[in-house]
Amino acid sequence: MTGVKIATIGGGSSYTPELMEGFIKRYEELPIREIWLVDIEAGKEKLEIVGEMAQRMWDASPYDVKIHLTLDREKALKDADFVTTQFRVGLLNARVKDERIPAYYGMLGQETNGAGGMFKAFRTIPIILGIVEDMKRLCPNAWLINFTNPAGMVTEAIVRYGKWDRVIGLCNVPVGAIMVEPGLLGKKENELIYKFAGVNHFHWHKVADLEGNDVTLDIIDQLFKEDNGLPKNIHDIPFYKEQLHQMKMIPCGYHRYYYRQEEMLDHALEEYKTIGTRAEQVKKTEAELFELYKDPNLDHKPEQLEQRGGAHYSDAACETIASIYANKNTQIVVSTKNNGAVPDLPADCVVEVMAYLGADGARSVAFGELPTAEKGWLQVMKAMELLTIEAAVTGDYGTALQAFTINPLVPSGDTARKVMHELFIAHKAHLPQFKETIERLEKEGVEVHDEVAKDLI
Amino acid sequence: MTGVKIATIGGGSSYTPELMEGFIKRYEELPIREIWLVDIEAGKEKLEIVGEMAQRMWDASPYDVKIHLTLDREKALKDADFVTTQFRVGLLNARVKDERIPAYYGMLGQETNGAGGMFKAFRTIPIILGIVEDMKRLCPNAWLINFTNPAGMVTEAIVRYGKWDRVIGLCNVPVGAIMVEPGLLGKKENELIYKFAGVNHFHWHKVADLEGNDVTLDIIDQLFKEDNGLPKNIHDIPFYKEQLHQMKMIPCGYHRYYYRQEEMLDHALEEYKTIGTRAEQVKKTEAELFELYKDPNLDHKPEQLEQRGGAHYSDAACETIASIYANKNTQIVVSTKNNGAVPDLPADCVVEVMAYLGADGARSVAFGELPTAEKGWLQVMKAMELLTIEAAVTGDYGTALQAFTINPLVPSGDTARKVMHELFIAHKAHLPQFKETIERLEKEGVEVHDEVAKDLI
Amino acid sequence: MTGVKIATIGGGSSYTPELMEGFIKRYEELPIREIWLVDIEAGKEKLEIVGEMAQRMWDASPYDVKIHLTLDREKALKDADFVTTQFRVGLLNARVKDERIPAYYGMLGQETNGAGGMFKAFRTIPIILGIVEDMKRLCPNAWLINFTNPAGMVTEAIVRYGKWDRVIGLCNVPVGAIMVEPGLLGKKENELIYKFAGVNHFHWHKVADLEGNDVTLDIIDQLFKEDNGLPKNIHDIPFYKEQLHQMKMIPCGYHRYYYRQEEMLDHALEEYKTIGTRAEQVKKTEAELFELYKDPNLDHKPEQLEQRGGAHYSDAACETIASIYANKNTQIVVSTKNNGAVPDLPADCVVEVMAYLGADGARSVAFGELPTAEKGWLQVMKAMELLTIEAAVTGDYGTALQAFTINPLVPSGDTARKVMHELFIAHKAHLPQFKETIERLEKEGVEVHDEVAKDLI
Amino acid sequence: MTGVKIATIGGGSSYTPELMEGFIKRYEELPIREIWLVDIEAGKEKLEIVGEMAQRMWDASPYDVKIHLTLDREKALKDADFVTTQFRVGLLNARVKDERIPAYYGMLGQETNGAGGMFKAFRTIPIILGIVEDMKRLCPNAWLINFTNPAGMVTEAIVRYGKWDRVIGLCNVPVGAIMVEPGLLGKKENELIYKFAGVNHFHWHKVADLEGNDVTLDIIDQLFKEDNGLPKNIHDIPFYKEQLHQMKMIPCGYHRYYYRQEEMLDHALEEYKTIGTRAEQVKKTEAELFELYKDPNLDHKPEQLEQRGGAHYSDAACETIASIYANKNTQIVVSTKNNGAVPDLPADCVVEVMAYLGADGARSVAFGELPTAEKGWLQVMKAMELLTIEAAVTGDYGTALQAFTINPLVPSGDTARKVMHELFIAHKAHLPQFKETIERLEKEGVEVHDEVAKDLI
Repeated sequence: MTGVKIATIGGGSSYTPELMEGFIKRYEELPIREIWLVDIEAGKEKLEIVGEMAQRMWDASPYDVKIHLTLDREKALKDADFVTTQFRVGLLNARVKDERIPAYYGMLGQETNGAGGMFKAFRTIPIILGIVEDMKRLCPNAWLINFTNPAGMVTEAIVRYGKWDRVIGLCNVPVGAIMVEPGLLGKKENELIYKFAGVNHFHWHKVADLEGNDVTLDIIDQLFKEDNGLPKNIHDIPFYKEQLHQMKMIPCGYHRYYYRQEEMLDHALEEYKTIGTRAEQVKKTEAELFELYKDPNLDHKPEQLEQRGGAHYSDAACETIASIYANKNTQIVVSTKNNGAVPDLPADCVVEVMAYLGADGARSVAFGELPTAEKGWLQVMKAMELLTIEAAVTGDYGTALQAFTINPLVPSGDTARKVMHELFIAHKAHLPQFKETIERLEKEGVEVHDEVAKDLI
Repeated sequence: MTGVKIATIGGGSSYTPELMEGFIKRYEELPIREIWLVDIEAGKEKLEIVGEMAQRMWDASPYDVKIHLTLDREKALKDADFVTTQFRVGLLNARVKDERIPAYYGMLGQETNGAGGMFKAFRTIPIILGIVEDMKRLCPNAWLINFTNPAGMVTEAIVRYGKWDRVIGLCNVPVGAIMVEPGLLGKKENELIYKFAGVNHFHWHKVADLEGNDVTLDIIDQLFKEDNGLPKNIHDIPFYKEQLHQMKMIPCGYHRYYYRQEEMLDHALEEYKTIGTRAEQVKKTEAELFELYKDPNLDHKPEQLEQRGGAHYSDAACETIASIYANKNTQIVVSTKNNGAVPDLPADCVVEVMAYLGADGARSVAFGELPTAEKGWLQVMKAMELLTIEAAVTGDYGTALQAFTINPLVPSGDTARKVMHELFIAHKAHLPQFKETIERLEKEGVEVHDEVAKDLI
Repeated sequence: MTGVKIATIGGGSSYTPELMEGFIKRYEELPIREIWLVDIEAGKEKLEIVGEMAQRMWDASPYDVKIHLTLDREKALKDADFVTTQFRVGLLNARVKDERIPAYYGMLGQETNGAGGMFKAFRTIPIILGIVEDMKRLCPNAWLINFTNPAGMVTEAIVRYGKWDRVIGLCNVPVGAIMVEPGLLGKKENELIYKFAGVNHFHWHKVADLEGNDVTLDIIDQLFKEDNGLPKNIHDIPFYKEQLHQMKMIPCGYHRYYYRQEEMLDHALEEYKTIGTRAEQVKKTEAELFELYKDPNLDHKPEQLEQRGGAHYSDAACETIASIYANKNTQIVVSTKNNGAVPDLPADCVVEVMAYLGADGARSVAFGELPTAEKGWLQVMKAMELLTIEAAVTGDYGTALQAFTINPLVPSGDTARKVMHELFIAHKAHLPQFKETIERLEKEGVEVHDEVAKDLI
Repeated sequence: MTGVKIATIGGGSSYTPELMEGFIKRYEELPIREIWLVDIEAGKEKLEIVGEMAQRMWDASPYDVKIHLTLDREKALKDADFVTTQFRVGLLNARVKDERIPAYYGMLGQETNGAGGMFKAFRTIPIILGIVEDMKRLCPNAWLINFTNPAGMVTEAIVRYGKWDRVIGLCNVPVGAIMVEPGLLGKKENELIYKFAGVNHFHWHKVADLEGNDVTLDIIDQLFKEDNGLPKNIHDIPFYKEQLHQMKMIPCGYHRYYYRQEEMLDHALEEYKTIGTRAEQVKKTEAELFELYKDPNLDHKPEQLEQRGGAHYSDAACETIASIYANKNTQIVVSTKNNGAVPDLPADCVVEVMAYLGADGARSVAFGELPTAEKGWLQVMKAMELLTIEAAVTGDYGTALQAFTINPLVPSGDTARKVMHELFIAHKAHLPQFKETIERLEKEGVEVHDEVAKDLI
């Protein structure tokens, strides 16, 4: 039996067609035999729609690849070569709650930053650790390619608590920068050289040209001249030029939450009060996508998927898998064990850096020490991540409170506690590790106040 | 010529009588010959009032010590054995501006935390570095005992940029904890053993009893039972018990600004809108104090000085000086070069730790690694300090903006920039290093909006 | 039942009378109730001699303290307040083997340095870890005061593998320096201030006077003028003055093994070939001491004990115990958990530093970073220690070989292996953890070649 | 004017033909315009012989490249794109002295290890820093490719004291391992994946196969079965298998000097007493090579050059240059700034690691923390390097003595001092920075005792 077996947890996701497209494009270097799309009972309908669509895509290709749909994770994992994870515990409704409950109290609700991101971690980490345990039994040589958010914390949990090193965490944010910036200098994509340092959704990069000269400041200057081309799902609020000049690095789009806290919050609250939060918008896009997917004549990725946000995610995943499989040494920005690449963080934690991907995984490029400000930011964010992960694993209330307090986007105090308490109640079904805390809060009469969120419990 | 020469920069301060009381109390171990109180032209009247009061205090004592009043810093420093600094650049009016300008925009205005503390550093650091240069010429063997705020940053600037190691930074906050907590366990002051780690106004402590058992959690539990007795100039907002139980350490009072951000801000804004900010209140207390000091019959520290806040400050200073002079090995919490005492920060930066004070200065007690949350907090605060100091020294706008952005009490964005810009305008007279920036802002028409602050420019 | 209970493991040691003298001297601050001297069957006779002598010493004092002699360690440990360890696994004969077997091959044989020290660690660490386990059950609040060599490695093993923090490792070497050096500058003992950094038998110190000036170079210059007064059991070979001037610190006497490797080896081999190794000399002194102790009229420490070497050891132990008991804050150089005091080593390893001793143990004075050479030396020595301890705990042959290879006093190669193998055979009775290795070596026909050592097996 | 300009300092070296061969092979990706071979007056004859040979090689190729011969370094450097350094201060005779003077006293004399390597650094570093200063003026965008030994220390000096970052240090030792080991497992060269960590001539590597499995232990086992194929200029003395199994890494050949100190020394002394030291042997090979080079019909690299030792050196250099020029991302083991790749050493020092070479230089692969033994070894070796470099720059005697003392291959003591002193005298002409020391030693009557070395002064 030759060829590669792929297992995709959360296979019913609307992203799956993009993943298929990426695999089809790379078939010659990544000869896939079979793809198993796994989902849970609640996602069965979507799994079937997207699964049939996926099979049509392969059937329209020159390659003979079989798509298997299953609710039995063990079957999918058995002897898999690569496992990709793109599941969302509690589906988009959980994200709606993550976004609306903080917003009700005037705080940022967001999928990976602030209060929302922490609760996404609380829900996701126990599940991913369960997947890792299954992999130890069923496919101990497989690679786990995670793009479930918060991708950095999930990868850190896999390495630190799951004791599993064959994992790559992925994100599309760096891809965007690498694709857009060369154009700003009148160059093509492979004419600039990139180094990254940080953690997921919180990294900086430096750029050199093919003469080996640092062109970071040139790009920064261009970014302030014209459309900066950064990912679409970050609202268009510019950085301060003097700040970027001081750091001599380019922050990722998500840094706006930290460098323009006020405006990003205002924007989020404005959406909350008008068109609905991001999750509510995405729900509509997703519904439309699934309508399209149902079309028995559709056998290629529809253009509308691009608007979903998260473009290039799946492309990064497919390239990662191909590069590991064929030892291609492709340069990709990934979440992986630090090993010193970012010397301002411990060598054993997970960072997001430029790496050459090969058969032994990510060979991270050592970045060197960060300037004072970025060093401080990174250290406090890693502390927040470690506390969040520890709380997710132990279910300890005090640790969760410490994580909330240290999070730079959560102003500490009683309102923050209220938000945390309501999120516990709202996500009760997916937080078994916090059972004791949630029962106490229920006894104390804590209730969700945002009506939309409350209806989704 | 025998006996110790003391020079006190900012000698016209209302604290001076407390300093005198401390010296008189310790005369037997610290045989002072003469005390030079220095001030600037603008403080001449206060200097004379408090100087005469100081001389009366000594005259009422059994000791023959001469108080010299001068506006000539060089004369005071010449051959001094100890130099104490308690000056306030721009006097209390500068503090009013530090507090009111942020508050006008709904942000925390405070003397050492948030935007205010950074501008106090901007004003103070160039002056202290000038004093250090004078000391290198005039009294190269003297010790500099600093209690000008922000005491940690000022001490760091002296060590890092002034290249002067004979300095001790002092603060009364730890003194308060050490005096109050034993009573909570039914013990006397010397029956508990303290270790501290952190930076000024941002440290934690652990406590052991005379059996060597850690009693930190016992004290925490007591703190939540009754009046916690922490310093009076922190508004009475309790910590969260679960948080303290998680960290197994006791934070200092100023941690409320970070652990109860919302309530501390509300309180500050309430005062701003009603009775006036802290500086405005202190101005009144000070005026009353100086009225008292004018009384030619008053020859001892008046009780009202206690209410001024900052009690025990001068006592700590006197004990520090006596312990250095007589190699007493008294345990005092001081700001000093880390040397590894707090291993989570670089060995060459300044930290606030428990130390034994002796002829060679502070022998810091190694604290060991901090837990995750406190480590992250401390690292980001030290980054903020280093950036603030760098901006104070270089006058670089981008660095100042980075310091503002990373400060956990300043929500980044245009309002923060506005606050920063108005503070630049308001403190123009004391920020020569930012001349270029201030001229640019003036050209752009930046004006102070808070009327009270505006009137004080 | 009031008063302190002391348990002394290895109570039959010739040092015990010094220990008694130290306790008697400090009775007012350390009110001892009973002292238990424990030894093993093989040491019973010596235990009885020295035990009776000890009781006579107390009987001659004004204090009513009872000496208990026992071979039952558990009885001695039960409810003890302080446990002191001064045992020697395999007695002095084991030391003879440690010294002679390497010397036979022209290598340094020494009690704590080189091959000998490593085998002393292999024999001692399993025993001390057994004592710690007993203490967890029988006296969980007791302090363990260790002066069994190699004291640093033994203390590290207790903390790292025994997970026991209430331990102080002691050595008399620093005591000697602190007593002798002031005289070199015409000063009294308490007129100089000491800071130490390093590990046991491998540390450096810096000295300040009561004006706070560094006088280290002055002492160095004096050391090269006259009798340096360092401990008697280091042969009189001077350091190189230029080297000490470069480091601006004073090395301990044992550094001669590393800084004058050639001459120290020559001296050891000379003794080996003539008067016998140090252990053989000490055996004679000991025999004489025990003859003295038998005298039923002797009720005080005899002068001859001073010549035994190791003077002040017991005094340091008694002062340590008194300082912990009475929270005296005495400054003593001890082996204790680093906690950052020596920032060039990990915060969780054991170092030897100046500390203030109190009810919570050692409050180490942060030393700051070492210069390049000393940093490198210290890091390689700590690696050697950690490997030796790991080999002692695991019995792994490869780890022992790595420890031997990295030891700067063992020239790697086949002769070193031969020495290691013969030491395994020679100490077979006390190395159960290396059973497998020793059986293999026996099969391979490895035999001890030094006749004196061979006769002692 | 298009095409690349290469300047080769020490162009008269016998290696130059190999360099030419490497450039000819890569001409299509590295279009060279002109090559400047620079040498000093004393090397003029060899420069002419090898220069004509080099021109014949190009003339026999399809490419039109002009070889310029010059004694004027500035002309060669002017606008160069790449500068390669392969000079030998004092020529091979200096190496003879480095080897024979220690050997006379029974110590290891070797080109890069022990006493010899330190004096090679003392001679080379001032020259290379002069070259760097010239480059700042004459070709500020050029890359410096150094393969003058000790390559690691020379590179460190360039970065640390020369403040020049566009430098790559090269060595052929890793190339050998990468070429030979795959065959041991029945694989081809590109079928194994390598990671390296350490410093020049003192590094370890780990190997993975194309399934991502660590095969290091498999290679180790093979190494002990058959001819290990490591570089020819290391005498054939095997490592200890148990030691390699414990470290789970493969040391470089030069580790034999440290892991089999005794046998390597014996071998060196044996050669010293019989066939002459390595330099004396190489002198013969070189003379023969130059005879060959004189042949006006020879227009390709002669086979005999392989036996010279140092094979693949030039190939590594050419590939490095081509990979930088064409941003090829070739994996090469280089000496470069750490940046965290080896987290056990400071981020700002130079290490030898696997890197992807491109237009911005070396993108080092983060290796992660080393095991205890290797960490300790590496830290002490880096300390030795830093001290040697500091002594080379400052000419300080005490620092040189510290470097000698900490060097694991130099047994400290009077013999080591004698060796050092004689080396100072022997290399007087090339150690202007030690003028004062050398004059003092001359006054003291220090003379070289080895007759061969003495005759070469």
